[in-house]
Amino acid sequence: MSQRLIVIGGGGAGTAAATLAKRFDPSLRVTVFTEFPDIAYSPCGMPFVHGKEIPKFEDLFLSTVDRYREDGLDMRMETAITDIDLDRRTVTARNTHEGFDKLVIASGFVWEKPTVPGSNLDGLHYVKDIRAAMEFDKQLDSMRRAVVFGATPIGIEMAGNLGNRGLQVDLVDEGPWALSEILDPDVAEPVHRSLEKHGVTLHFGTKVEGFVEGRDGRVGAVQTSRGELPCDVVIVALHKQPNATLAEAAGLTIGTTGGIMVDEHMRTSARGVWAAGDVVEVPHGLTMLPIRGLTGAHAYAQGRTAAFDISGRGGVYDPVWIPWGMVAGDYTIGGFSLGETLATAIGVPYVLARGVGVSRARYYPGATMTHVKLLAEPDTLKLVGGQIHGGEGVKERCDFLAFAAKRGATLEDLAWMENIYSPPIGALFEPIAIAAQNGLAALQQPARAKAAA
Amino acid sequence: MSQRLIVIGGGGAGTAAATLAKRFDPSLRVTVFTEFPDIAYSPCGMPFVHGKEIPKFEDLFLSTVDRYREDGLDMRMETAITDIDLDRRTVTARNTHEGFDKLVIASGFVWEKPTVPGSNLDGLHYVKDIRAAMEFDKQLDSMRRAVVFGATPIGIEMAGNLGNRGLQVDLVDEGPWALSEILDPDVAEPVHRSLEKHGVTLHFGTKVEGFVEGRDGRVGAVQTSRGELPCDVVIVALHKQPNATLAEAAGLTIGTTGGIMVDEHMRTSARGVWAAGDVVEVPHGLTMLPIRGLTGAHAYAQGRTAAFDISGRGGVYDPVWIPWGMVAGDYTIGGFSLGETLATAIGVPYVLARGVGVSRARYYPGATMTHVKLLAEPDTLKLVGGQIHGGEGVKERCDFLAFAAKRGATLEDLAWMENIYSPPIGALFEPIAIAAQNGLAALQQPARAKAAA
Repeated sequence: MSQRLIVIGGGGAGTAAATLAKRFDPSLRVTVFTEFPDIAYSPCGMPFVHGKEIPKFEDLFLSTVDRYREDGLDMRMETAITDIDLDRRTVTARNTHEGFDKLVIASGFVWEKPTVPGSNLDGLHYVKDIRAAMEFDKQLDSMRRAVVFGATPIGIEMAGNLGNRGLQVDLVDEGPWALSEILDPDVAEPVHRSLEKHGVTLHFGTKVEGFVEGRDGRVGAVQTSRGELPCDVVIVALHKQPNATLAEAAGLTIGTTGGIMVDEHMRTSARGVWAAGDVVEVPHGLTMLPIRGLTGAHAYAQGRTAAFDISGRGGVYDPVWIPWGMVAGDYTIGGFSLGETLATAIGVPYVLARGVGVSRARYYPGATMTHVKLLAEPDTLKLVGGQIHGGEGVKERCDFLAFAAKRGATLEDLAWMENIYSPPIGALFEPIAIAAQNGLAALQQPARAKAAA
Repeated sequence: MSQRLIVIGGGGAGTAAATLAKRFDPSLRVTVFTEFPDIAYSPCGMPFVHGKEIPKFEDLFLSTVDRYREDGLDMRMETAITDIDLDRRTVTARNTHEGFDKLVIASGFVWEKPTVPGSNLDGLHYVKDIRAAMEFDKQLDSMRRAVVFGATPIGIEMAGNLGNRGLQVDLVDEGPWALSEILDPDVAEPVHRSLEKHGVTLHFGTKVEGFVEGRDGRVGAVQTSRGELPCDVVIVALHKQPNATLAEAAGLTIGTTGGIMVDEHMRTSARGVWAAGDVVEVPHGLTMLPIRGLTGAHAYAQGRTAAFDISGRGGVYDPVWIPWGMVAGDYTIGGFSLGETLATAIGVPYVLARGVGVSRARYYPGATMTHVKLLAEPDTLKLVGGQIHGGEGVKERCDFLAFAAKRGATLEDLAWMENIYSPPIGALFEPIAIAAQNGLAALQQPARAKAAA
């Protein structure tokens, strides 16, 4: 009798693990459980439908349940798993025990919920389920004011897009600037300006103290440490928390971040049980500290790693250097590994290399400024991290730098990198190389002064 | 008495060497000789002014002669060097001997001239001098038909831009497809379609046999192996040839390509004499074969290397992996190191990895297809080269891949690379990773079939 693989979760990690495990070993019986009625859509696109950048929610669907079934997967939609029994090797769904030989837990995340008074009022919206988003989008037409609680990535995307749509938006966050847990203040500054241009009023250093009831039991205002903000809706955009309750109850080892601990094959502490995606923690490439709450691309790659291991193909999920990027208002920001804020917080020493270049020849229409900041180890000058902001090419440059940093590239390497110069697509000087050259030149100045003394 | 550095040439290599050498050692007396009246403009932008993508030629000036003089450089404009005497350590300009302690030869390139009858007629235009381009641009308003001779990078840019401007353009080349010396036919195909959409008629496999005189001693038609093409102007866009006549006469060692031979510090065969830019040849990173005719970015970096060495700062110009890219019509193509055409021609074995992805989430407006082809060593799977075509992000990806290839990155490394997923700027799957994954999967198939047999 062929083996049975059960996958809990229909997001990027779960569908990757299920689809690839089946492809690698067609004899494997693969069952996917998801509590939702939909699969294979892009939640990351939802803020941009609200902002009318993307025409409709239907565009976000990348595949269908039938398509997965055609691929031979047993798809259990709207079916929550309520228990995992590692001894009997079963999961419980709809009060039925389902046996497995191998199990992948890709149960994703749940949004952190506020604990202040009024947190259970209607009108507090979380960006997660696409059907809820579709309903919410209809209501948006009759709304005038929104409060976004949390200047997190999703909070900033929602604020910018609701502003774009013409709503009056208040963005409230206790931190001193946008994305203050990861973003450096110099990079946050143009984000603030861009959000304001899109009709967003910023309230940093501001605590949410409660939600005030308006009409019909719905939220009518947000009580903050700096006064009351009337609103028709609140977007709650706090932290992502690993949805690891079942895994923990089943006895799997949970890490310090609350995510399931996995090895480089995405194996958990239990034999024949893998985990992937937002429910796990993985080591950071530079610091080796466990982190979680990464992107859909990371989730997919982790699910892929689990499938590789399940099929005996090898393949290792390396510690992550986390290229990241997003659009805030109409400004693009990104980075990799650590910025100054995080490096300082965890005590990683660094020297800075900064530069500003252009994305095309500066006289070519459409050229945008590209600001590059690199952090390097003081002695070896190996990359520690960096942040980039501007217009075009932020994503590709951050991907490049994460790859280079992982392989020990130094400021010297980047200062002498070759680059394409062709006026419509690239400037004579590559912004990354400019930053590295400036950094090296700045480092030499004290040395020269010393030699002269 | 302080030393004197003479720089021959006011292009990217010459101005980089002069400016940086002076900056590193302010006591150095630096003289720049150029036969042209202008300096520090971007010749690479000129086709796009003709195409009205860039508003005016004045936009192409990045600095002024006065600015260089303020920086302490002795600028000799419109002053051709007619002799180099390495024994007396002088150059001759306007019949005067000018002594040097150190010399940088950055005399650039000259366009290959056709040798068929009629090659000296008026109306054969070469894309080089900005004043000639300004004159030519005025004439273009009254012209209807242009023949572009040579489907080289500049030929393709001119053809696309003149087509854009509304001229009827015939592009004639003896090769079987556009850029047939470096571009692979699968990448040329969309270039052809884009050029045709811009009003360009393609004549590949077609020899130019002569230029036919029309009115007033000007060219009136091009005689080709497949018939006569009437025209108001011919753009001659053949090969760039190193402008090394004086260097060769002075006794410097010239390489097999006709370029001046230099070491990794851009030193020539003569003591105290450096060379940089289009006049030199440098080794290709993979094959170590000498090549030349690279970009302005390469020229600048070579001039910078010479300045580093002149000032005793070290710094090495490594063999080149040549990221390249350009817009053809409205399609972007690029690559690094070798494509299939060149790899086959010089006998470099390779396996292929191909994939197609998107530049943003595929549902996000503005997303363009990105076609990636990677060549890797059959045994180690280290990158040998590649070509990319599509819309956004070609330049950044080719820069990245050249950097990665130089450092020995493999298809495995790229298949597991991290990438940014954020709908407006990056898709869930990075096109480079898709190609690498596909390539690895294809390589496993014969192995699996063998195992089953």
